[in-house]
Amino acid sequence: MENPGSLDELIRALRCLPGVGPKSAQRMAYHLLQRDHEGAGRLSGALAAALDRIRHCASCNTFTEAEQCAVCASTRRDRTLLCVVETPGDLLMMEQTQSFSGMYFVLMGRLSPLDGIGPKEIHLDRLLKRATDGVVKEVILATNFTVEGEATAHYVSELLSAKGLMVSRIARGLPVGGELEHVDSGTLAQALVERRPA
Amino acid sequence: MENPGSLDELIRALRCLPGVGPKSAQRMAYHLLQRDHEGAGRLSGALAAALDRIRHCASCNTFTEAEQCAVCASTRRDRTLLCVVETPGDLLMMEQTQSFSGMYFVLMGRLSPLDGIGPKEIHLDRLLKRATDGVVKEVILATNFTVEGEATAHYVSELLSAKGLMVSRIARGLPVGGELEHVDSGTLAQALVERRPA
Ligand SMILES: [Zn+2]
Ligand SMILES: [Zn+2]
Repeated sequence: MENPGSLDELIRALRCLPGVGPKSAQRMAYHLLQRDHEGAGRLSGALAAALDRIRHCASCNTFTEAEQCAVCASTRRDRTLLCVVETPGDLLMMEQTQSFSGMYFVLMGRLSPLDGIGPKEIHLDRLLKRATDGVVKEVILATNFTVEGEATAHYVSELLSAKGLMVSRIARGLPVGGELEHVDSGTLAQALVERRPA
Repeated sequence: MENPGSLDELIRALRCLPGVGPKSAQRMAYHLLQRDHEGAGRLSGALAAALDRIRHCASCNTFTEAEQCAVCASTRRDRTLLCVVETPGDLLMMEQTQSFSGMYFVLMGRLSPLDGIGPKEIHLDRLLKRATDGVVKEVILATNFTVEGEATAHYVSELLSAKGLMVSRIARGLPVGGELEHVDSGTLAQALVERRPA
């Protein structure tokens, strides 16, 4: 006696979600099939639609459905400032402070050699090209204050300083070990104002 | 600045999974779109296929792709014994002990008035009909030894005893508060052998 094939496959497929082990995957599959057919159908469609429509912004690398995201397409932003963040969520957090009017570059990760995430995986070649477009005057590093985020900031700082760019780091107003996502807008705004040379 | 529509919808849709809050849903969506397009496509297809193919066994109520599951369709089972379990996973656990050759009824849940799960939601009308088919002689209650599982066993016992059926409970060989899924086969087999009148 085993689970029917399509149920087994669903349980296996759910394990592609980060943090979902075999027991949670089984619980999720049972829940969807027993109590939430509507949710399951919606999730199936949402996955297919997102795969079909979401791409990376040609300028800043964040997720977008267009060629460029809304920030990059705007004519009201200060193109001499370039803020480097780890994820699209961090970009949204920065925007919520309403205290930054420059441009962004989204690494889509942070350096993590143990996980096989090196300079190439976080698109540092594209960042270098973007930052040396002749318009950008200052690069603000807003990676997390975790060990990996700090290492990433250090690496990027060396890389861009060598090209004669001014590079700054948002102030350590956030608690050490803290992540941008878990901090209030006011603290993050303060950290932005108090940025220091990197 | 907001997430693109299809990304926002994916994050909302992921929240139909039990135990997934807004932050995990966002992390899952980013992970799938950034690092695992293959997994996302597979999950989308698996959800659609399972929704299309999985139904409930006409006899025991477990998940199956056929009219009847493999256990119910088998001619080698003892039809005088009916074992009541909470979930299809519990049925698989019972089968793994290789010490039960009777039939099953899967409640697909347990009584939980606070969550709005009453006798109807766990199909006690169908169980009553199934257990009084004239062939079943003994009903073995193998719900979990949690508060809700015990309450369910008590309720079902009253219901079926009133119909003159012999009703037993698997032995409390499992730790109090324990769940079938988290116990080894040997312990579960012992609990089955030592079942007592309910
Ligand atoms: Zn952009
Ligand atoms: Zn069956």
